[in-house]
Amino acid sequence: MGCGGVGRQLLQHIVSSRILHANKGIRLRVVGVCDSKSFLVTLDVLSKEFDDAFLMDICRTKSDRLPLEKCKCEAFPYSESRRKLTDIAARLGFVLVDCSASSETIEVITLTLNLGCCAVLANKKPLTCSMEDFDKLFLQPRRIRHESTVGAGLPIIASLSRIISSGDEVTLIIGSLSGTLGYVMSEVENGKPFSEVVKAAKDLGYTEPDPRDDLSGMDVARKGLILARLLGQRFDMSTIRIESLYPDNMGPDMMTLEDFLANGLPLLDNDIEEKIKKASSNGKVLRYVCILQASNCIIGVHEVDEDSALGRLKGSDNVVEIYSRCYEKPLVIQGAGAGNDTTAAGVLADIIDLQDLFA
Amino acid sequence: MGCGGVGRQLLQHIVSSRILHANKGIRLRVVGVCDSKSFLVTLDVLSKEFDDAFLMDICRTKSDRLPLEKCKCEAFPYSESRRKLTDIAARLGFVLVDCSASSETIEVITLTLNLGCCAVLANKKPLTCSMEDFDKLFLQPRRIRHESTVGAGLPIIASLSRIISSGDEVTLIIGSLSGTLGYVMSEVENGKPFSEVVKAAKDLGYTEPDPRDDLSGMDVARKGLILARLLGQRFDMSTIRIESLYPDNMGPDMMTLEDFLANGLPLLDNDIEEKIKKASSNGKVLRYVCILQASNCIIGVHEVDEDSALGRLKGSDNVVEIYSRCYEKPLVIQGAGAGNDTTAAGVLADIIDLQDLFA
Repeated sequence: MGCGGVGRQLLQHIVSSRILHANKGIRLRVVGVCDSKSFLVTLDVLSKEFDDAFLMDICRTKSDRLPLEKCKCEAFPYSESRRKLTDIAARLGFVLVDCSASSETIEVITLTLNLGCCAVLANKKPLTCSMEDFDKLFLQPRRIRHESTVGAGLPIIASLSRIISSGDEVTLIIGSLSGTLGYVMSEVENGKPFSEVVKAAKDLGYTEPDPRDDLSGMDVARKGLILARLLGQRFDMSTIRIESLYPDNMGPDMMTLEDFLANGLPLLDNDIEEKIKKASSNGKVLRYVCILQASNCIIGVHEVDEDSALGRLKGSDNVVEIYSRCYEKPLVIQGAGAGNDTTAAGVLADIIDLQDLFA
Repeated sequence: MGCGGVGRQLLQHIVSSRILHANKGIRLRVVGVCDSKSFLVTLDVLSKEFDDAFLMDICRTKSDRLPLEKCKCEAFPYSESRRKLTDIAARLGFVLVDCSASSETIEVITLTLNLGCCAVLANKKPLTCSMEDFDKLFLQPRRIRHESTVGAGLPIIASLSRIISSGDEVTLIIGSLSGTLGYVMSEVENGKPFSEVVKAAKDLGYTEPDPRDDLSGMDVARKGLILARLLGQRFDMSTIRIESLYPDNMGPDMMTLEDFLANGLPLLDNDIEEKIKKASSNGKVLRYVCILQASNCIIGVHEVDEDSALGRLKGSDNVVEIYSRCYEKPLVIQGAGAGNDTTAAGVLADIIDLQDLFA
């Protein structure tokens, strides 16, 4: 599901890694592709699959913002995708892949899992719903994977899952989980005004079209919630303390984007500059982080040691420090935490990791 | 197999994580334990297992360097372990865990895998044998796991496996894979003479009883070979260029340990000091690293950027930088890469990860 940048990149990864996987005895069959308008399915899911040329056709069609083509397959309107998926699941065990950014997919994922299928998510929304819905998704936790929901393809979820299953006790996770805010904070640290850095980041395509979507901290909070729930904590979004980088009166409901960029943002420069000076006088640097402990999850600006992995972070890399009994000095994972290529790579690695359930 | 420090710690991890795993529907049954002298097996592997009290008994007995006890189970001499394991494998799918440091386990591991069982190794030796024997072990690669052979519990193998299965192309791996040599190089960097640092590391218990076992680079070379083979390269130990930190004429065959410490080591101080000065004049620092590319694997002293994860490394942490299409700036994994606790944690995570094959 989902044929945005990540979905298209995933189809390309599948095509280009075919020989590699065939050599290991793995055959990846794509039998259906769905976007928000329509659902394409092969004529017979048991015997037919989309060939590579057709998959690349889909990528091109979606890149050109055209509707999905309808040759060589059955096409259904999106409204019928639920019924159609149920039909297929009754005949075939498959992996449902959600590369969308929709909060509406949770029902169809749950349904498919209940029918014995597996799911791989790059979409954070279904994992940050109510605990009740979350529990339904994780009735059989081995059947659902979601590495790319935190730090894109970085092996954060996989590593944390290993630590948990080894019986080690995680005491603290601190991470810079937004490439955008990581970039902003390290540029501000270099002496540039906050407003100019945000505008430059927007011009470079690092931010969402409205940078307030990044500055609100909501995206980081979703990642924090996913990690908290992985640790077994029954948190909701409302449990998480989120510090937005802009005040309520500059929100999208109160101020246009143009007004925010021209008049709102510059009003925030002094405050950030003061905080940086204060941190610096303590030998620290400012980072926008997620701090996760047993009892709480805090998202916001935080002073960290200049000499830590977090403190040394530059550019748009993500970094996560995991502290536990085994890792009194933290286990550190760092690298590119955004981008269609690495996000889709994480999704494909998840799919491959499910192979034992189809053996 | 193997009841040294790692094996004992593993039994303790199994006991202490029982409730955690039971809550996830996983029951870990230990039906046999083997050391170099004897092999204990439950009276009926299908219905009986060692209880927690008995497992802790085994740990205590081995800590006290006594032979394995023989109550509540059958005991066989080590020479019969092969026949006995074959018997059990015919009746029960199980995971054979090798926490020994022996090169003699490869035959029994291969045998057990061929009978449909799985294997988890903390022991590097079976993975650094001839390519012919290695191929036999990896006939069904999903059935064999070995995270703790490189960087102890650090998720290096798991992360690299994910990158490979995502179809991403790894172009370069650089790692400091010896906590001992990492400590030595960072202390030498701080201006201390090489000979004094090595002696201090020995006194702290950081090195093998004869530090030349670390300084030879052989342990790092084994880890490099394991990573190379994971990338699909058909390397042997003889393919790897290994730079020893002492010359041949100071080897264990030529010089006693006492003589080496008192008279050999100090002769090496100048050379290392010169190399550090030269590196420093290039804005670099010296590290003892494994460099792995498509065509070769080099183990030795290398100048790295002061400002890289490797260059900033302090103390006994391991660090690995993985470069690939997705990670032009490297994916970095860093943390404690030695110690019984974390090594055994990695083994247990591997065991749990095999659960889908027993579903």
